[in-house]
Amino acid sequence: VTSRGVALTMSLLVALCASVAANSASTPTVAEIVAASGKEEWRALDPARTLYLQLPAGRVTIELVPEFAPLHAANILKLVADHYFDGLAVIRVQDNFVAQWGDTDDNKPRPLGGAREKLPAEYVTGYDPAAPFTRLPDLDGYAPQTGFFNSIPAARDPGSRAQWLAHCYGALGVARGNDPESGNGSSLYVVIGQAPRQLDRNIAVVGHVWQGMELLASLPRGSGALGFHENVAQHVPIASLRRAADVPEAERTPLEVLRSESRSFARLLDARRNRRDDWMKFSPGFVDVCNVPIPVRRRDPV
Amino acid sequence: VTSRGVALTMSLLVALCASVAANSASTPTVAEIVAASGKEEWRALDPARTLYLQLPAGRVTIELVPEFAPLHAANILKLVADHYFDGLAVIRVQDNFVAQWGDTDDNKPRPLGGAREKLPAEYVTGYDPAAPFTRLPDLDGYAPQTGFFNSIPAARDPGSRAQWLAHCYGALGVARGNDPESGNGSSLYVVIGQAPRQLDRNIAVVGHVWQGMELLASLPRGSGALGFHENVAQHVPIASLRRAADVPEAERTPLEVLRSESRSFARLLDARRNRRDDWMKFSPGFVDVCNVPIPVRRRDPV
Repeated sequence: VTSRGVALTMSLLVALCASVAANSASTPTVAEIVAASGKEEWRALDPARTLYLQLPAGRVTIELVPEFAPLHAANILKLVADHYFDGLAVIRVQDNFVAQWGDTDDNKPRPLGGAREKLPAEYVTGYDPAAPFTRLPDLDGYAPQTGFFNSIPAARDPGSRAQWLAHCYGALGVARGNDPESGNGSSLYVVIGQAPRQLDRNIAVVGHVWQGMELLASLPRGSGALGFHENVAQHVPIASLRRAADVPEAERTPLEVLRSESRSFARLLDARRNRRDDWMKFSPGFVDVCNVPIPVRRRDPV
Repeated sequence: VTSRGVALTMSLLVALCASVAANSASTPTVAEIVAASGKEEWRALDPARTLYLQLPAGRVTIELVPEFAPLHAANILKLVADHYFDGLAVIRVQDNFVAQWGDTDDNKPRPLGGAREKLPAEYVTGYDPAAPFTRLPDLDGYAPQTGFFNSIPAARDPGSRAQWLAHCYGALGVARGNDPESGNGSSLYVVIGQAPRQLDRNIAVVGHVWQGMELLASLPRGSGALGFHENVAQHVPIASLRRAADVPEAERTPLEVLRSESRSFARLLDARRNRRDDWMKFSPGFVDVCNVPIPVRRRDPV
């Protein structure tokens, strides 16, 4: 956290950058790592598994990750294809926890159409030990292994060959009741605070928000229990939830993500773990899987 | 994360509570732990070290912790006594990181009055091994030991006998430039996202927000570099920053915090670490120091 004078004054910033560049022992900044990266180190989001959540303040871009919860991802895509979410709302914003959207009327719930009411509990999935996983060497209290699957924070238990997406900031999860099979994707939440890793292996995490987190995280908090809004006037309307592939190409947000298996991602992890520069006085030598700012950017027109 | 139907329907909630009460193997909820706690397990915030930050949306209640950065706490109290912050603004809101307030005009900075321009780097402080510290048994990647000092998340390094307040959600820190002595308390920040523990031991953390976090965390994000607001119109004005002791008693927010050395706090830690109830399918057997919801409530009138 820099003081405002340092951060805002461009001449000072330039001087700082020069000073960092001159110091060969300095770790690069995220911006420097991105600037030095090759085009092949990025992957474009696949429109077939990318969702656009349209809030009054703008678009939230979400990637589904069917590899971790295939039936949930398929059910969500079915609901999205049916325009199930259009006209529903963000019904819950609990500070330092989640923003959640879904049906707004308990008494007269919207029909799920062709989507399923119940789904098997896809809280973890099996994996092939040879499958791609950018593992962190750093210890973690919530899981035997942590790392990244296609640049998304994830965790593994080699003993049971289970893997799951970690509840980090931006994780998309499927709300459920006590019945482990009661989650069906008609109510979804995004983590907007400190990673609630205690939910890992308890709920299906099925995606990751790549753009527009600030639109969810800055919503007014609900005043009811668990952050639910107490009256309909507080609901934040969802204009639409669409698959990118179903949106005209000119209206898409073409994002690309730095690949977790790339050399630049390894540089990023090292810089987070062992940051050395003129500001940093003590380097932790450690990074938490939820504490890596994953580079995402608008793709250049082809 | 419960589905809306379960969380909102009161009859279902009552049924759930009855079911939990009937299941002797269940861990208690935070509400149940609080309800069963004794009055002596709570400490009232001391008005001499409590600050009220007045934002347009309401009051943020902050406790200063001079034990960890005495010169910084004293300098902040001097600035507060001089009404230094009144009419200044929140100048930076960086998503998943910090909200920061301070001077709004680099060209004509407000004089610091009797407060000091520079302070020694109080990033860590020494400690007596016998001093009160509610230590967590859980491992932590950023520090040899973590726990709570007067219910506030903290960390220790027994090797160097250093202790510091951990950068968890709600931590109050002192912004600084590259010069380690350039922080003076005239620009302060609060953590509003995933705990940036990499800042631990790099900056003076001098307090904790006990009430009103949602007012800071839901502020619109700044569009400039590092979340700084790019023009003055985006600044969120600070009406005042006052010491509770300087506010008429009837206008104070009399809060009390569950003592970290209490039996009820130990129950809380156990329930977070080993949660068992009808919703939870997998208990982590672990809790991160930044992942404990610390009970705070309005004190009953004496």
